Amino acid sequence: MTPAATAPTPGLPRHVILREVGLRDGLQSIDRVMPTAQKLEWIRDAYDAGQREIEVGSFVPARLLPQLADTAELLAFAKTLPGLTASVLVPNLRGAERAMECDADLMLLPLSASHAHSLANLRKTPDQGVAEIGRIVAARNAAGSRSLIEVGISTAFGCTLQGRVEPAEVLRLLQAVLDAGADRVGLADTVGYADPAMVRELFGQALAVAGDRLNCGHFHDTRGMGVANVFAALQLGVTRFDACLAGIGGCPHAPGASGNVATEDLAYMFASMGITTGQDIDRLLALRQKVAGWLAGEPLHGTLWRAGLPRTMLPAGVAPAPLCA
Amino acid sequence: MTPAATAPTPGLPRHVILREVGLRDGLQSIDRVMPTAQKLEWIRDAYDAGQREIEVGSFVPARLLPQLADTAELLAFAKTLPGLTASVLVPNLRGAERAMECDADLMLLPLSASHAHSLANLRKTPDQGVAEIGRIVAARNAAGSRSLIEVGISTAFGCTLQGRVEPAEVLRLLQAVLDAGADRVGLADTVGYADPAMVRELFGQALAVAGDRLNCGHFHDTRGMGVANVFAALQLGVTRFDACLAGIGGCPHAPGASGNVATEDLAYMFASMGITTGQDIDRLLALRQKVAGWLAGEPLHGTLWRAGLPRTMLPAGVAPAPLCA
Repeated sequence: MTPAATAPTPGLPRHVILREVGLRDGLQSIDRVMPTAQKLEWIRDAYDAGQREIEVGSFVPARLLPQLADTAELLAFAKTLPGLTASVLVPNLRGAERAMECDADLMLLPLSASHAHSLANLRKTPDQGVAEIGRIVAARNAAGSRSLIEVGISTAFGCTLQGRVEPAEVLRLLQAVLDAGADRVGLADTVGYADPAMVRELFGQALAVAGDRLNCGHFHDTRGMGVANVFAALQLGVTRFDACLAGIGGCPHAPGASGNVATEDLAYMFASMGITTGQDIDRLLALRQKVAGWLAGEPLHGTLWRAGLPRTMLPAGVAPAPLCA
Repeated sequence: MTPAATAPTPGLPRHVILREVGLRDGLQSIDRVMPTAQKLEWIRDAYDAGQREIEVGSFVPARLLPQLADTAELLAFAKTLPGLTASVLVPNLRGAERAMECDADLMLLPLSASHAHSLANLRKTPDQGVAEIGRIVAARNAAGSRSLIEVGISTAFGCTLQGRVEPAEVLRLLQAVLDAGADRVGLADTVGYADPAMVRELFGQALAVAGDRLNCGHFHDTRGMGVANVFAALQLGVTRFDACLAGIGGCPHAPGASGNVATEDLAYMFASMGITTGQDIDRLLALRQKVAGWLAGEPLHGTLWRAGLPRTMLPAGVAPAPLCA
């Protein structure tokens, strides 16, 4: 159920949007290919649980990421669900052209603030990435497409390849992509290097640059800081967060390491604080159980699912989880 | 190693104390009895990793908690380690008498803010608990003992038995135990019901009542909020936190649910934020691995151990964990 109403918390936003990115960021890190039918069921169930923003896949060559080869089909289905914002990740102009052909509501363009990561991941320097974003904006405008363009600054808090990433470089790139015409920007802790103090500092500076065009925090939970980092960004007024059901994803080189912060744990935190997300936590947990079955053997994460909602958040008359006192 | 120095964060404390409570709060929730020799090694290794506050056990009848029957022996050993503050939990005057006989540096007295939990756990109402604390203070003073008395207000954020716990009741009890002569007080989220907004609100009010005699936050990570809750309390200036290595403990009725927030994850967060704890994270992780071997088959928690420290926190020349980019 949607938990019993809790009063909003003074000083915190009253509404937050959780974007489910498990179908893209989660599944791309898992070797096995989830059948399209299961992905469609995932999207359907997530929608029924109240999720209204879902990143369904990525327009990258299937030989690079066979796990995401069915993105066009998923996007077509997602477009049939009223009120759903269907995002896809696009790494370059070619991907953007496919996304616009498929009428994606939003294109998520990654731009790495780490020079080393940018070269390894996108085969471009960050500035070449900014130029490509400019070309995508121009193509989108020339085509009259209504697809929104969001740039996610990845490795914004550090990089496994390069180590430190200078905040000044993140802010410079943020300004550059805004100048290039991005509709929205977000900051991503791609490898789980952020702590809440870093989040407060960098998001604070980024908000000064981007204002309300900065509207997404993307936090990996690689070292257990994911929920705390979300809270730190929330305190600054950030109201959109990426998350993966069951915290799937992670890093192929750090076996068992978690991926994005778990959708269900964030939905619980927000509900507990009286912040609406539209999520039905029972349905999210039921979907998590389904996905866990599909991904049997893969490491899953998140914490709420073990204990369930606290008694204080259950409607009157609903029996709580077994006693623990 | 102790991570490379990070600059302190403006607005946050510069030093925090982590009290290891795994030997008490952790092991009491696990059916198997850890051999005394392993516990002694745990205390020794934790000390060598820089921990200077350890709750070694509890003076409760061995028939109730056979896992903690060797508390006197552990305390005797802990007392030989220079600069270590050795705590024990005592549920009543009889336990306090034993703790003082053994010259415990600190007695941790639990007082449940939930009437239902207090009756179930201590067989006393909260007010009867306050009266017992008064008797313990009087006995300590009469004996000329130097054992400090800390009262932990348990179920301060809600209770599995009773549901909601009124903040006003928590604050009333806090004042009552201060009036009864407790040296220190802390607030405990015994069943993992707290969120960061609740922490901010209740700790803020409690600090107004207790000032710097409020100096411990005890957070269970049952629903994934543990680290975020610690950060919320830290923002208010709280500088002592309980934690369990590997997040052991939890709840016998919620299989797999985690216990206290993991020591190693908190040590990492503080180090990353430039807050000193004196902890050597590599040694903590090595001890975690040892404890994991001793507790093979039990559910363990925490996140840092999978991925290790970020490259940005390794000294120059030390190879980072495998690349993830």
